[in-house]
Parts: sequence; C-alpha cells; structure tokens
Amino acid sequence: MPVSEEACAPAVPATMAQEPRQTDFQLVRVKSTWCRIKKGEAFSNGEDKITLSEAKIGECISECGISWTIEAPIYFCYKVVETYNILDPSNTTLLWGHITDPQQLELAATSKRKPRRFVVIDEVVDKLYGSRVREYFEENNVQHKILALPTTEETKSMDLVLNILQEVQDFSIDRRTEPIIAIGGGVCLDIVGLAASLYRRRTPYIRVPTTLLSYVDASVGAKTGVNFLQCKNKLGGYTPPVASFLDRSFIQSIPRRHISNGLGEILKMALMKHKGLFDLLKTHGKYLLDTKFQSCSGFADHGDAALQTTRIAIETMLEELAPNLWEDDLDRLVDFGHVISPELEMRVLPSLMHGEAVNVDMAFMTYVAHARGLIAAEEREQILQCMRGLELPVWHSGCSWALIKTALRERLKHSGGQPRMPLPTGLGVAEIFNDTSEETLEKAYKLWVRDCRTVLEEEPAAL
Amino acid sequence: MPVSEEACAPAVPATMAQEPRQTDFQLVRVKSTWCRIKKGEAFSNGEDKITLSEAKIGECISECGISWTIEAPIYFCYKVVETYNILDPSNTTLLWGHITDPQQLELAATSKRKPRRFVVIDEVVDKLYGSRVREYFEENNVQHKILALPTTEETKSMDLVLNILQEVQDFSIDRRTEPIIAIGGGVCLDIVGLAASLYRRRTPYIRVPTTLLSYVDASVGAKTGVNFLQCKNKLGGYTPPVASFLDRSFIQSIPRRHISNGLGEILKMALMKHKGLFDLLKTHGKYLLDTKFQSCSGFADHGDAALQTTRIAIETMLEELAPNLWEDDLDRLVDFGHVISPELEMRVLPSLMHGEAVNVDMAFMTYVAHARGLIAAEEREQILQCMRGLELPVWHSGCSWALIKTALRERLKHSGGQPRMPLPTGLGVAEIFNDTSEETLEKAYKLWVRDCRTVLEEEPAAL
Repeated sequence: MPVSEEACAPAVPATMAQEPRQTDFQLVRVKSTWCRIKKGEAFSNGEDKITLSEAKIGECISECGISWTIEAPIYFCYKVVETYNILDPSNTTLLWGHITDPQQLELAATSKRKPRRFVVIDEVVDKLYGSRVREYFEENNVQHKILALPTTEETKSMDLVLNILQEVQDFSIDRRTEPIIAIGGGVCLDIVGLAASLYRRRTPYIRVPTTLLSYVDASVGAKTGVNFLQCKNKLGGYTPPVASFLDRSFIQSIPRRHISNGLGEILKMALMKHKGLFDLLKTHGKYLLDTKFQSCSGFADHGDAALQTTRIAIETMLEELAPNLWEDDLDRLVDFGHVISPELEMRVLPSLMHGEAVNVDMAFMTYVAHARGLIAAEEREQILQCMRGLELPVWHSGCSWALIKTALRERLKHSGGQPRMPLPTGLGVAEIFNDTSEETLEKAYKLWVRDCRTVLEEEPAAL
Repeated sequence: MPVSEEACAPAVPATMAQEPRQTDFQLVRVKSTWCRIKKGEAFSNGEDKITLSEAKIGECISECGISWTIEAPIYFCYKVVETYNILDPSNTTLLWGHITDPQQLELAATSKRKPRRFVVIDEVVDKLYGSRVREYFEENNVQHKILALPTTEETKSMDLVLNILQEVQDFSIDRRTEPIIAIGGGVCLDIVGLAASLYRRRTPYIRVPTTLLSYVDASVGAKTGVNFLQCKNKLGGYTPPVASFLDRSFIQSIPRRHISNGLGEILKMALMKHKGLFDLLKTHGKYLLDTKFQSCSGFADHGDAALQTTRIAIETMLEELAPNLWEDDLDRLVDFGHVISPELEMRVLPSLMHGEAVNVDMAFMTYVAHARGLIAAEEREQILQCMRGLELPVWHSGCSWALIKTALRERLKHSGGQPRMPLPTGLGVAEIFNDTSEETLEKAYKLWVRDCRTVLEEEPAAL
C-alpha cells in the first residue's frame, strides 16, 4: 500500500542548495549514557564522573541529507607465553596463563565453581599426548570435553568448524571466562580460531602449537581460516587468541622433514630482518635438526641455539605483525616466500609442505635480488647454502616459468595492483619492490634453473 | 623419534630463580621494516622517514621463560548516509557513496575497467524493486550479479552464508574495491555482513535497509550473524559495513504492522535517552504510521516528523554503539527491551515480531521502574499510552512470571553474572541497575498483568 507519490517530496528540496556543513563529535559518558559533544568543546556535568571515548562521529549536512562517519578503535590484546612441561598437572599455564590481572586470577583460581574447558586436539597429537591431556584436567579437577579431530589441509573446512561449534554448544561454556583450547599444528589452530571467533560473536580461545611451523607462525598472529572451494584459507578472520602457550617439548615428536618445514619460516624472518638469526641457522642448523629443538645442555658448542632461534623468530614475527594485525597495510615483509609459493603449493599438493614451498619461492627470489644487483653473488651463495643445510628444497620441478608468471598475476589481484615484492638487500635486511622488470625475472629464473635444478628433480616435470 | 629426555633440560634451570623483568616496546618503521624500541627511547636513523605504530609489545622475562603481550588497535571506519531515490540511475550513491577520499573517488569513477558489483537482495524486495535495481546497474554500465534469496529467521543460517560465498567466488570480485551490496531487511543485512566478513578474511560490504526496523537498527551498527541450532544469532561477528545507505522511500512498501515493529526500537532510544524523540512519537505516532515515514509536505502540522524521528533514532543509536562497537562493555543502554524479549520472542515465534517482543519487555520494565520508585505513575502511563498509540503490544500471554525468571537467569549467563538492567529514571533518561529485588519484580509483574492483560490476549495462554 504505497503512499501516493504526489503527496511526498524529498525532505530538503534540491533548490535549497547549500554548502555541506561538517561537524566532528567526541563521545562522553555520564553515568550510563553516552552523549556526543563537539570536538574541542568543554564538557561538565556537575560532579558526575565523565568518561571520554576514543570513538568519533563526524556529521556532514548537505542538500542530500545527513552523512555520519563513525571511527572506532578496537584494542586487541593477546599473550604469547613460553612454558615448559605444559601438560604437567602442577603447571597452571594451560588453565590460567591467559589471565593477566592478578585480582581476576585470584577470583578465577579460587572460585567455588568447577572450571570447565572445551579442548580441540588434532587426532595424531591425541594419540601421542591425549592421555596426558586428560590426566592434566582430571588432576586439576576441571570439567572437560576433549574433541579429537583430523586436522589436515583436506579437512580444513567450514564443515569441521560447524562440527566443533555443535559440540561447543552441547558442552555449554561460559563465553567470557572459559576459553576454548586448541592443541595441534597450524591447521588445527586456524580452524579452532575461526570457530571460537564466530561463537556468540567472539569467544576467547587458546593456541597450543605442537609443530615447529605453528610454534613460530600460527601461534604468533591473529589469522584464522579454512579452505573453501579448493582455495587455501579463502574464509576466515583476524581474531587473535587470548593466549598462545609455547612448549618446545612437543617438537620432539615430529618427523625430521617437519622440522625443516618450520625452519623455512624461521629462515624467512632471518633473511628479511635479522642477520644474527641467519648466523644461528647457518651455524647450528644441522644440530637443531638432529636435536629437534630440544634444549640439550650436553653440547656446549651450540649454547642454547634452539631457545635463541625460536625466540628471535617470534620476536621478529611479532614486530612485523603487531603494527599490521588486520593486514590493512599490503606492504608486508613477511610475504617473502609467499609470492610464488601459494600457486606452487596448491599445484603440486601434496608433494611440498608449506615451509618447503616457501623456501623454493625464497630461493628463486634470492636469485631475483642478485639479478637486480641488491645482493652479491657471494651473499646469494651463502643463502642457498644455508637452505641446503636446513634440508630445504631450493628448487621444484613444478616451478616453471609459466607458473611464476601466473603466480605474479594472481599476486597483483590480491595486493592492490602492485607486486609488493619483498627482496633481500643484504644478509638480514630487505625492502619491498614494485619495479622488478620481466627481463630481470627471466634472467634470474635462468640462472636459478642452471644452478639449482637437479637431474633427479627434473624428471617429475615430464610426468 | 623423541630425543632422549636425559640429554635435555629446561633452558633456564628452576634454581636460577630471578625477579621477572618487564620491558615495554613501541614499534617504528624504517623503510619496509618494523623494529621495536624501548618505550620512551629516542630513535633516529639518519634521514629515513620514521613511522611510529600505535601497537605495543610488552616483554616479561622470568625463570619460566619469556612472555610477550601484544596490544594492537584496529580502527573501524564506516559511513551511514541518508539519500533519496537511491535506485535512480543518476544517483551515484549506491556505486561510489562508500568512498570518502576525493582522489580515490576520481580514480574509481574514471577507471577504464568496468565496475563490478555483487548484490544480494531479499526475494520479496526483489519482486518489488528488482527490475529497478537491474536497470540501475545497466544504465551505469556496471557488470553485476544479483542474487535474490529468501532471508527470514528460518533461513538465517550458515548454509545461506555459504551459498552466497559460492556465488561470490564464481562471480569473482576484487576484494579491495568491489563491495558486496545487501538490499533487504535486518536478516538479509546480517547474513550478507557475515558472508562478506568471512570472504578472504574481510571484504567490504554495503547495507541498504528496506524496512523501518533495519533502517534504524541493523544499518547503524557492526553486528553480523546467523541462527545456529535454534539459537538466535549464535554465530556472527562485529565487522561493520563500509557504508549503509538509507533511503526512506523503501518503507512505503512495508505493511503497517512492520512500521510499528520498527517504531518499537525507535521508542527504545526515546525512552533511554531522548525526551524530544519521545515527544515526537507521542505527537506524530499515528501520522508516521499512516504515512509510512514518507515526507509529506501536505500536512504542515507534522513538519517533517519522519525525517526528525529517524535522524534522532540514528544519532542516539550511534552515540551508544560507537564507543562500544565490539560490546566489550556489557553495560549497554540499548539492551533496554532486550532482557526478557530474547526468551519471549523465540518461545512464541512467530507470533511476535522482534520490535513487538522488545516492546512487551519495555512495557514490563516500565512497571519495574515505577515499582522501584524511579518514575512516577503518571510517567508510566504516558509511556504505555505512547506504546498503544504506536500500535505496539504492551502485554503478551506468553510472558509468564516463570518465563521472566528463566529469561533473567539466561541474562546473567550472558552479561558477566550481573543483570545490568537498563531502566527509565524519567522520560528520556535511564540508568543501568544491578540491584532490583525479586520482590520488586514480582510486584511490578502483578501490576503489569492487572493493567495490561486483555481478555482477548489471555486466551492463547490456555493453548
């Protein structure tokens, strides 16, 4: 039943043309009510306590009506905590380590209510550590539900997220005080992070990485995600955990190749911004592989290389992630090794692990940096030698010149029309470049193929 | 192949006890690299331009290892824009109204690339306005995909979100420059908001509300969501649109009862914080219902009541939402009418619309405020009379004393153990209370039943 059009006219006729008027407002709260006040205007309301918000509202009045612009900051805060023997029942980190405020901690730890925790654990990790996890919660008198799931690239889907959410709903947790716990590799942490961030619009969650890669990578940042329609991490968000708890002892259970895989991401940080970390990897790489990042006091030559390496990797990663938590800035040093590799990794799945694909990309880019004159031949060789020492592939037969061109085109789509190519400009220093010519890339590619292609690896190309 | 435990020891033996050392770092960027510097420390790097981040990293070294605390603000910015004749092809709001920066606007509008837009429209709205929407994009030479979907409480599910995402992926949009557009009521805007916020971890989207309720409510805030396991909005997030475009002319197509429904949420803002808005509703309520919020110049007595009413509703709503976009503060005036109603609405579905259930809740709470001595009997009567004038129910047979007690228990679970009950303390002023006794509630309930229960409405209770 529309009202007749004749009876109606725009509120402000077009003839009443006027200059737009802009007013900026701040927000103050008196008792329970927020009110806007003009920016810079003094505000007093007798003796009531006044709170000023950081949010702002701009109002623009023009002949077309009013347009409001809302600017509001949200502060994300999370902890990344080293711990030892996290599954020892006397270690309270897993239970209370996410709480910073001593008063809150006192309240939580002495509450008469039995604590409750919902835990998602990767099924492989469950086989190795599941009984210790159950024992931990039982000894601490925590009501718990442990959900063991296969968390692989193949199962990393919204279906699994909804599975988890159904179980969370059945278990019934208090959204404010009972964080969901994820124990596993990067895929597990990503899936659980997405589930938690969706549940009741945000439920706190905790990450406990069990692989070297997730220890230095997924644990440190805010990203969550699942694959969708064969696309890697197509759906997800940027809600950080309340805390990540890092226990290196899990790493002793993973195969040697998985250690190399994690070393790929650590090397990325070394090449981009930390010469000291590069030297550590060069000197102690084999030792770290042999000892699986366990702190072995028996080998004085190596000091505590495992501890130093992981700490620097995490510190440098945090430096780059914290100022750009939601990736609003597309210029990201941490994209080194991630320009060609997304295309390569999906194309040759499952022949390369993530950190391996990243390393193949970094090896090529090292040749690009040399071809551009950013690093000397000797520096390029040092980098390649370090990669080999870490038992990482420096070449893959799937990485054809055609694939590189496709990958660079894809990159342009996802990075606002610029390649934004991070390249080393020395050992442990780097910059982002947008002007690498196709000639340079091709020249680098030819040299890379000449030096790095092995007969053994060439063969699969014919398949 | 675990490394033997004997060979390994914690990096820092427990005997080396030490006081925790806390250092706070800021982050500065030089060229492409972020580095941390101690808080308060001067930083200079020759002539390079230095950028300081608002993010902070705290580092605490103790005998247990290092614990890092990351604090990072994310600035959300969005526009709420009044417009007229949004589907007139000469009105560029729908296409470019979300862009604020004049240079960016120039670039977008003059780009040689044909613009692309993915639109989700409610199927009822599509029947009424679909041809005009298509015409709009055709005349503006925009490549478009229009997806008409049933968007009701029953279909408000993750399934529908994934449906939308599959189509988005097929259409292939540029995540940075081609916002997804949602045209419909609150359910449509909520579903599309969730889909967009998940796609590639955040894709901009635009809200075009077509009902009065969504015009003053869903359009203004950041919430997205879907129902899950029979629970209202159990999954969702807080990602605001880039812009909401408000065109009141859509409201002329909705039934009278839906106008009342929207008036329920407007009345909420009036009662909580704006006496002027309350007076407008009291004086012009019937007129607004009769003219369906169209600006009718023929009735001088009413001035532009429709324009004034919606503007004040939006301004007051923005004041309360902007400082608390992610609802970190649980003390929310806008929860008035939302303490009992979630339970009531789901219990009696579909007999009450959302704004109607909210009004039943507000009517009861008005009696509570009177029972507590916060408002006079005469004020209570003015409020109830205004509700009746807006053709809103002030009572529902499903609202038993038992339901109220259940709803209050549920409320405690979701609001950190406190009832946080917003109550009017006069006409257009309110506060949040945590100390309403059960006696007061019961006394208020009895008076409410005596005054408001109608014989006609009592009957369904026996069903």
